Amino acid sequence: MFEELAKSTSKWLSEPGPDSEIVVSSRVRLARNVNGFPFPHNMNEKDAEELVGVIKNAVNKNKIFKGSKVIDLPALPELDRIVLLERHIMSYDHVINDRKRAVIFSKDEQTSIMINEEDHLRLQMILSGLRLEEVYKTLDKLDTDLEKKITYAFDIDVGYLTACPTNTGTGIRASVMVHLPGLVISKEIGKILNNISQLGLVTRGFYGEGLDIKTPFFQISNQVSLGRTEKVIISEVNKVALQLVDYEKKAREALFKNSRAKVEDNIWRAYGILKNVRSINFEEAVSLLSSLRLGVESGLIKTDPKKVNELLMISQPGHIQKLFSMEMNDAERDIKRAELIRKRLA
Amino acid sequence: MFEELAKSTSKWLSEPGPDSEIVVSSRVRLARNVNGFPFPHNMNEKDAEELVGVIKNAVNKNKIFKGSKVIDLPALPELDRIVLLERHIMSYDHVINDRKRAVIFSKDEQTSIMINEEDHLRLQMILSGLRLEEVYKTLDKLDTDLEKKITYAFDIDVGYLTACPTNTGTGIRASVMVHLPGLVISKEIGKILNNISQLGLVTRGFYGEGLDIKTPFFQISNQVSLGRTEKVIISEVNKVALQLVDYEKKAREALFKNSRAKVEDNIWRAYGILKNVRSINFEEAVSLLSSLRLGVESGLIKTDPKKVNELLMISQPGHIQKLFSMEMNDAERDIKRAELIRKRLA
Repeated sequence: MFEELAKSTSKWLSEPGPDSEIVVSSRVRLARNVNGFPFPHNMNEKDAEELVGVIKNAVNKNKIFKGSKVIDLPALPELDRIVLLERHIMSYDHVINDRKRAVIFSKDEQTSIMINEEDHLRLQMILSGLRLEEVYKTLDKLDTDLEKKITYAFDIDVGYLTACPTNTGTGIRASVMVHLPGLVISKEIGKILNNISQLGLVTRGFYGEGLDIKTPFFQISNQVSLGRTEKVIISEVNKVALQLVDYEKKAREALFKNSRAKVEDNIWRAYGILKNVRSINFEEAVSLLSSLRLGVESGLIKTDPKKVNELLMISQPGHIQKLFSMEMNDAERDIKRAELIRKRLA
Repeated sequence: MFEELAKSTSKWLSEPGPDSEIVVSSRVRLARNVNGFPFPHNMNEKDAEELVGVIKNAVNKNKIFKGSKVIDLPALPELDRIVLLERHIMSYDHVINDRKRAVIFSKDEQTSIMINEEDHLRLQMILSGLRLEEVYKTLDKLDTDLEKKITYAFDIDVGYLTACPTNTGTGIRASVMVHLPGLVISKEIGKILNNISQLGLVTRGFYGEGLDIKTPFFQISNQVSLGRTEKVIISEVNKVALQLVDYEKKAREALFKNSRAKVEDNIWRAYGILKNVRSINFEEAVSLLSSLRLGVESGLIKTDPKKVNELLMISQPGHIQKLFSMEMNDAERDIKRAELIRKRLA
């Protein structure tokens, strides 16, 4: 599966959006559980099968998923699961756990539901650029629609009940993925991430939990989902994202003003390597593509930004294997990744 | 002066010669002194002036130097002296010492004489590739011709007398400049250089004494010039050079057989950086040009090898300043060097 999917990047990464030269994407997910079923980690197989069936029925008729089917797991081959992970449709936990579970995503890949992940339902929507409110509004409609067909586990005092208490209450996590090369190069990033964590927000790398790739891509999200309304949480993350946009713009301006030769050299070298490389691992690819992205965004290099974003997506290990239709070891993948990058930038 | 000269590379670097994919050039120099004059380090200014005059007269009529003039030092501006140093026409000592002295070189830059360097005369010839015997034969003729006009300081038991006893006897230094990236990458170089030193030969970097740039270019020369004939000395250096050619060829074959992806990647990255770089210091330029040279020599990259050799020459600090007709600090030079390299490789 997913041969066609894996050839291009997701809409949320390839399309421009508000402030998308810095805010790559905005994402909201809602954790929900169905009344009368144990939480996934306490479930037996029969419960799991029944639950997946109940949710399938509720989800299948929703118009957002028109033309999409619920995909049963673990039946889906591992490589396909990894492709969905790399496209941010599925979590790492949903790739590897061995419960009866499922996933569905809209044709445009912007909306998805993981069934029987940590919670019975994880509703998610991602859009390019900074537009958390729009994302939440759309996702809220889907949530309301599903609630007509499913009785959610809900407590009038506490809110939505979830498998892990950190998600209880609103069950919301609002996050933005930001590209902050200016703040990384100017070494201001450490102080800023520290300030963000003091505001009760969490910072992760490009791939969320589990993978720690040191590149200038960061995900910022709320930590607590209890005791505040969804609106307040969205507005807090949005406010920090706007501040980051402001800081990053100033950092880039200062860099191009004070260290122009060095920054330009760094960008052009990255471009030169990417266009000629014969073997490259994913971490280096992301790091060089990040430099190229900065070069494109600053008008220095005339390349379609979509191409750069596409390479960020399809350079991932699962995508490389999918695109070349073969299983490969690291060294083989590095060579094929280099081939792919060269061709696309040629 | 030397504006035209500085635009291209010396014949001994740009022309192909026997085994020149590994042996860049062959060089012989003869140390000679004029009877009746103190050695340069013991000279007063009047002696020096007189000596320079005597040698000028002897040299001026030699047909090798037809169309060339003796250039008086220190009158020559420092930047011009550095250009001659970078073209291997003059030694570092001849650039900086403050004696009355002079230099002359043939139009093709292959033959030169430093007057009043460490010795009264330093005759030198360089040709591309491995052809020490040819070089010595030609230089010997020049030496014989000069000896008709000048009485050399000579002792029947010891041979030619020189300012430093290490040069006494034949006064000869025979050297080859070799490019050994294969032996450097395969890490065999350490052992091999050690063996060479046990044979009584000396290894230096690209620029001989004084400058230690860590790149795969090495100069191998005899240490002792006393007690053996010129023929024997030449033949010893020649033998070692042939062995190095053999070792380097085998090392390159093994590299391309066993680590093809890595070696090719390294070469293409160097090429990509050089074609896009915006700022580069000389050491890195030599290192990347060395990789490019390997790529060209192994048929991987279709670029005129002359271009690569030319860049090795004109990327030098003095040449950069000469070419852009301005004095520059390091940072400015690095930018202009990058500009030059990009243009030539475009």
